[in-house]
Amino acid sequence: MCQSKVIVFEDGKAEVVMTDVTLLEVKDGKIIVKNLLGKELVLEGYEIDYIDFISHKVYLRLSV
Amino acid sequence: MCQSKVIVFEDGKAEVVMTDVTLLEVKDGKIIVKNLLGKELVLEGYEIDYIDFISHKVYLRLSV
Repeated sequence: MCQSKVIVFEDGKAEVVMTDVTLLEVKDGKIIVKNLLGKELVLEGYEIDYIDFISHKVYLRLSV
Repeated sequence: MCQSKVIVFEDGKAEVVMTDVTLLEVKDGKIIVKNLLGKELVLEGYEIDYIDFISHKVYLRLSV
């Protein structure tokens, strides 16, 4: 299975904000992530830094 | 394996620009994708629309 972890980098720390992510949407400057259980999280003020499809990790950073 | 396809939406058409993508990076307004074979593609003028981790597809749209 290929669900991903979404990780936020902030103040030099990495924090996992959601696991088992099935969908990530970028809309109106927000990042919306949904997981296997149907849980939804809306992240404002962040942008995608990089995505590693091998280790299934999405890294977000504070948007400038 | 969880490598993804990167698909660009433009003029109502969907075009696969890279397959077997292992890494996607957002840097200086550009989207840089790398695949299993080490091939690299730099996309300017696009932004991430959404990512479906179940069907392994990354959709890009023209940035506004």
